[in-house]
Amino acid sequence: MNQKLRNEVEQIIRGAIRAVTPDETVRKALEGKEFPGRIFVVSVGKAAWQMAKSASEALHQPYAAGIVVTKYGHVQGEIPGFVCYEAGHPIPDENSFLATQAVLDMTTGLKGDDTILFLLSGGGSALFEKPLISGAELGDITQQLLAKGADIVEINTIRKRLSAVKGGKFAKHCQPARIEAIILSDIIGDPLDMIASGPAYPDSSTCEQALQIVDKYGLKLSDRARCLLEEETPKELSSVTSTVIGNVKDLCRAAMQECESLGYEPVFLTDYLNIGARAAGAMLSNIARSHATVHKRLAFVAGGETIVYLSGSGKGGRNQELALGAAAGIAGLRNVAVFSIGSDGTDGPTDAAGGYVDGETLSDAAAKGLSIEKSLQENDSYALLKELGGLIITGPTGTNVNDVAVVLIDDV
Amino acid sequence: MNQKLRNEVEQIIRGAIRAVTPDETVRKALEGKEFPGRIFVVSVGKAAWQMAKSASEALHQPYAAGIVVTKYGHVQGEIPGFVCYEAGHPIPDENSFLATQAVLDMTTGLKGDDTILFLLSGGGSALFEKPLISGAELGDITQQLLAKGADIVEINTIRKRLSAVKGGKFAKHCQPARIEAIILSDIIGDPLDMIASGPAYPDSSTCEQALQIVDKYGLKLSDRARCLLEEETPKELSSVTSTVIGNVKDLCRAAMQECESLGYEPVFLTDYLNIGARAAGAMLSNIARSHATVHKRLAFVAGGETIVYLSGSGKGGRNQELALGAAAGIAGLRNVAVFSIGSDGTDGPTDAAGGYVDGETLSDAAAKGLSIEKSLQENDSYALLKELGGLIITGPTGTNVNDVAVVLIDDV
Repeated sequence: MNQKLRNEVEQIIRGAIRAVTPDETVRKALEGKEFPGRIFVVSVGKAAWQMAKSASEALHQPYAAGIVVTKYGHVQGEIPGFVCYEAGHPIPDENSFLATQAVLDMTTGLKGDDTILFLLSGGGSALFEKPLISGAELGDITQQLLAKGADIVEINTIRKRLSAVKGGKFAKHCQPARIEAIILSDIIGDPLDMIASGPAYPDSSTCEQALQIVDKYGLKLSDRARCLLEEETPKELSSVTSTVIGNVKDLCRAAMQECESLGYEPVFLTDYLNIGARAAGAMLSNIARSHATVHKRLAFVAGGETIVYLSGSGKGGRNQELALGAAAGIAGLRNVAVFSIGSDGTDGPTDAAGGYVDGETLSDAAAKGLSIEKSLQENDSYALLKELGGLIITGPTGTNVNDVAVVLIDDV
Repeated sequence: MNQKLRNEVEQIIRGAIRAVTPDETVRKALEGKEFPGRIFVVSVGKAAWQMAKSASEALHQPYAAGIVVTKYGHVQGEIPGFVCYEAGHPIPDENSFLATQAVLDMTTGLKGDDTILFLLSGGGSALFEKPLISGAELGDITQQLLAKGADIVEINTIRKRLSAVKGGKFAKHCQPARIEAIILSDIIGDPLDMIASGPAYPDSSTCEQALQIVDKYGLKLSDRARCLLEEETPKELSSVTSTVIGNVKDLCRAAMQECESLGYEPVFLTDYLNIGARAAGAMLSNIARSHATVHKRLAFVAGGETIVYLSGSGKGGRNQELALGAAAGIAGLRNVAVFSIGSDGTDGPTDAAGGYVDGETLSDAAAKGLSIEKSLQENDSYALLKELGGLIITGPTGTNVNDVAVVLIDDV
């Protein structure tokens, strides 16, 4: 392993994550805001605790009550006046339903001059949920969609129809109270009706699309679920104001700034990356190979969310798989590294945020009798990267603005 | 269709192909060269006629005889002192074997001060062949490899062992005569033992690798073929001098210069592109989407050779599939076009050199009731692009230096 590049990567990641943590940005979104009646704070998603904490300190007037609903291990301490729940992700569980019911109870019977400060971040789709079918069937349908490689847009199109809160239905429930939504986007292009399945945003997806997805993946559904897919969602919500305070573009920009501060010339490729994880890694390695001998420090940056195609049953995540997908293509290039991370600190069902490889990874693996090709075939990137010191571990970061992958080319 | 961009693309392609046609470069490679004995010219590959024509005019001394072996439709006229053969590609046929035998006859019994001017370009693997198994089985094995998505390196590793001329065996046959090889590279990284299966270059592939490929794709072989795979190829050839006069890097450079002359700022991505064609197109569309609003004319250039994964039985080629793979991702971007071409003028088993799409392609297809997703699924890019005016047709170009894909972003 190239220890110099490895150390720089850790620096870049720490700096970039810090820059996109919703602290200053929540404060800024609340600047100068006065709300007429009572304020209820609802904070949902992987970044919920961080956003609630910042809002609790930044609000210029007292709030009546607050609830945080976030993923297990993501509550970092108490927040005055808040009840904090931890629940299941990416599969909702009983605690998701319990916490969501608490939010619905708190927001029942509000008045027209009351405000719900709704702090929303990705992960909310699983965490904020009151299913209209059994929890078991909902879990099963989500699992079917994940296993068949459905993207987040498709998953949400289905789930919002099977839910009492998604697809604008939470906003409907809160009426006549107003909703001030502050949103951290974890979906490419910031589609507000898709982030956390859009609990407070008019739904642009249609029943027709939902039924097409059922056909496309051959989903197995109960009759009740199929009926719900045919019920339309709210298409207009005048009681809601929405502001996006961070997204993958900010993550790319932050990564580029960190690279620049280490003397790399950053080259922005895209913040719409949405191809297969392995192919994305391979293409970044193609780019690396053509620039490895320019004798200039270069950093190519690509943000978005790649797709894992399941061909095996190993353990990994899209960022680990992207990194591993680059290993063969940069093999032997001593001055090249590729890494990819999920800004939330969680890549797939692992404790890693992402993966790191460099020009030595392929030979390091071979020296240990490990095959990168086989590991990719098995979707088993975690074990191999762990063995080679290529896991990037951050723990929960307090933010969630999708993924960024970077190719670093040193000038030596 | 964006007719302005479409016209510019035609200009870029014409200019880039002209710049990489082996005319001036053959002349330059022969500059100042004097050969002691007789000269025999052997020109093999898709660019064989063009290279032979140029050499016949550039040689400073008379040549004893010459043979061109190229693909059907690629002979453009007579060359004094040459016999020109046309033969099968990508599957060798009886004319390949006939022409190759003529070359072997011409180069039998030469003396130590004789020189074979060996003009080599891609396509030679199929065109220059004397099989050591039946032509039928060789065709079958090649077909098996193509159908399973084997890359050109793998295909050549197998074929050179089943051949009397590949893998350095032609050079061996010519001894004691010297070989002056002038080569146009159509493989990423210019591996001289792989281009046209390296008839005059020491072979770096091993029997072990050949047998691994058999296992990997489950190839069906006769006993004789399996025995031949276990015979080693020449590993040293002191009688050969090799010069590469053009490759995909030159193609990228030429495309960038043409883009620049039209006012685009060229951005070089890679000349090692070797991922799946659809994924490459999708990733280029991801890049396009993030730069479509910068109000600057930009051209992202990626050269190499993508891979077609067969999921259907339609008609197309990797360049057409790459272009079509970009259509969904750039849909609605009125100032964006993506094209990809094979520099030899032939993309897959079609009469097109490649494909063109722009921000209107998806809606143009929908208006005609055509589905791009379905077309890709069927590997049927040709029909759809033809219907939409997206085929790029050049005819045989006289060169063969792999493929180039370009994203054009207009500033309006």
